[in-house]
Amino acid sequence: MSHTIYFDNAATTRLNPQVLEAMLPFLTNHFGNPSSTYSIGRTTRMAIETARKSVSQLLGVKASAIYFTSGGTESNNTAISAAIRDLGCTCIITSPIEHHAVLHTVEYYGQQNKIPVFYVALKTDGSIDYTSFEQLLMEQTSQGHKCLVSLMHANNEIGSLLNIKTVGALCEQHGAIFHSDCVQTVGHYPLNLSEIGVHFVSGAGHKFHGPKGVGILYVHPLLKIQPLLYGGGQERSLRAGTENVYGIVGFAKALELAMGSYESDSQYIASLKTYLKELLVQAIPRISFNGPEESLYTVLSVCFPKTKESEDLLFHLDLKGVCVSGGSACSSGGGSHVMKALQKTDECITIRFSFSKENTKEEIDQLMSILKSFLITNDVVVESIQ
Amino acid sequence: MSHTIYFDNAATTRLNPQVLEAMLPFLTNHFGNPSSTYSIGRTTRMAIETARKSVSQLLGVKASAIYFTSGGTESNNTAISAAIRDLGCTCIITSPIEHHAVLHTVEYYGQQNKIPVFYVALKTDGSIDYTSFEQLLMEQTSQGHKCLVSLMHANNEIGSLLNIKTVGALCEQHGAIFHSDCVQTVGHYPLNLSEIGVHFVSGAGHKFHGPKGVGILYVHPLLKIQPLLYGGGQERSLRAGTENVYGIVGFAKALELAMGSYESDSQYIASLKTYLKELLVQAIPRISFNGPEESLYTVLSVCFPKTKESEDLLFHLDLKGVCVSGGSACSSGGGSHVMKALQKTDECITIRFSFSKENTKEEIDQLMSILKSFLITNDVVVESIQ
Repeated sequence: MSHTIYFDNAATTRLNPQVLEAMLPFLTNHFGNPSSTYSIGRTTRMAIETARKSVSQLLGVKASAIYFTSGGTESNNTAISAAIRDLGCTCIITSPIEHHAVLHTVEYYGQQNKIPVFYVALKTDGSIDYTSFEQLLMEQTSQGHKCLVSLMHANNEIGSLLNIKTVGALCEQHGAIFHSDCVQTVGHYPLNLSEIGVHFVSGAGHKFHGPKGVGILYVHPLLKIQPLLYGGGQERSLRAGTENVYGIVGFAKALELAMGSYESDSQYIASLKTYLKELLVQAIPRISFNGPEESLYTVLSVCFPKTKESEDLLFHLDLKGVCVSGGSACSSGGGSHVMKALQKTDECITIRFSFSKENTKEEIDQLMSILKSFLITNDVVVESIQ
Repeated sequence: MSHTIYFDNAATTRLNPQVLEAMLPFLTNHFGNPSSTYSIGRTTRMAIETARKSVSQLLGVKASAIYFTSGGTESNNTAISAAIRDLGCTCIITSPIEHHAVLHTVEYYGQQNKIPVFYVALKTDGSIDYTSFEQLLMEQTSQGHKCLVSLMHANNEIGSLLNIKTVGALCEQHGAIFHSDCVQTVGHYPLNLSEIGVHFVSGAGHKFHGPKGVGILYVHPLLKIQPLLYGGGQERSLRAGTENVYGIVGFAKALELAMGSYESDSQYIASLKTYLKELLVQAIPRISFNGPEESLYTVLSVCFPKTKESEDLLFHLDLKGVCVSGGSACSSGGGSHVMKALQKTDECITIRFSFSKENTKEEIDQLMSILKSFLITNDVVVESIQ
């Protein structure tokens, strides 16, 4: 196997060496427990609060609204459980293509509290049908329900983007609590959370070249909620447990770096996506793409026509050192619930290519060469290849 | 301020450089998502499963009984919530000197589920009154209750040790579920969990020179429980969220190193504790010690007679570069609930000294010199000091 081509950046990203450098002092000398009152505890406490301030400024909110967690999943679980237990939500509105960290959580808390869960209608391209969403929200609200709306900012498999401001405004209008899983967009888009009308936002460090095992939960300053994890008074009593100091420092550094070069990085990454898309259309007849035309610039979800060869495509790409995924990494075992919801499983072999600034056009050329050589034995590829 | 003396190893420990070395490949090249099916995902998956195998062997259990979490707090929360929700416990027996990660969690789940919480009687030295415990357990069981018993293996403030086998046997006899917060003993004692009769055990990496932000939960193989965090199928669907790979690798390495040198380290650390204890008794009249004579070898909890000077002792030690704590780090804000439960707050200024293999007798000599110079202005110190 030659050079590995990593096109699965929506699953996780390589830790930025500058982020590791920022973390290292806290993996060596600065090891104090941030809850301790003496000097070396104060150093790590200061590092956490500096990180919180930096993250909050980049997200346009007050520092006190940002809580550090063990990752996007814990953030989603905390928000959803609190909305039901502490904020009086008696109805949940979500979509069938949310990440399992939302879907399984709303299913659990819905069932546990005998609260109905409604799934918004989707257009064929996977984007939300806003008319249907508003109607659902109005219906439930008029029946006296306070709703929790949990809709992801960008879908991790097909890249469809939520009009988050529209949803925020509708939620405000109908007195709903709005949670958005922004795991694919924190660190990838400039977000000003105070302008969105959102109550809870989840983010995860490892999706934008930060460390695994650390995430954030933004909680609107006017909300009063209880923790998911009980114990010590860390994170102003909202999240108990000795803080993952290096993770938190790494999260903040990664977000700072990502936002610092956002303009050029996003343009570059979008150009890679466009380049691959064009080459695929040229080379493979009947190829199509999942998700709307305007979508997350990091993700290209491709529907390869189903053939004997294309069914082995994922396996073949792995053999050739190309890292991509069928659906998301988290659903790699049991097929994609997103593709099922979009009724795409019969006609497509779906491959998600997701890019970072570390990828190159040369890698895409290599990928195309591998794809062509594998699919050429079949009538999928009609063009003659040298 | 000269050289810092770190005597707060029960709060957290310095990361062992060998542990960092083991973690670094996973902070650089091996960054794949362990749920991914391709090569670089398989590398991290393999690292996690190798870590699990190593940890489980060191704890005398099957690999499938070990789950990785974000730390001791999450492990405690997972065990307690599952015992009530999934295992049918209708009564909780714990002690008033558990860590807040147990106390606040049983309070919450007790209240939430309208389940009574009983606190075992303690002897004056803080050890469990086993007769009273057995009686409590018998009473509740005879009334048809299935009890969750949550008792820590070693108290983090006073070092009192639970006779964990005795409790395990009593729990087995009365059909109770036994959870033990072993955060202060995993990595500090050779534990064979399969011989203890325990159902759940919590451990935290940063207490034995491993990384923060990672812990384990041992779950008895015959138990069927649901997760606390819902989402992807990680950790065999018991703990969702992309795995903190470097944390997990670091946990396993730290445990391997700790157990590899357990005999000599524990003897050495115990000798430091004895040395300090003897010097304190010689130098300071009316000094006494919290906790039983036979206690955790890493912790010496000292009751300094209350005087004008001793009330500022913690502050003064910090100024001189000595890191110790009043109670635990987690309760540094609001006074120690352990000392309150033991009715020691009126007579004592409690300082907890906790040691690691990195400490030296020279540091203890320096500490004594600082203590004497500070307390000498008061009648606490009667001996004349050169």
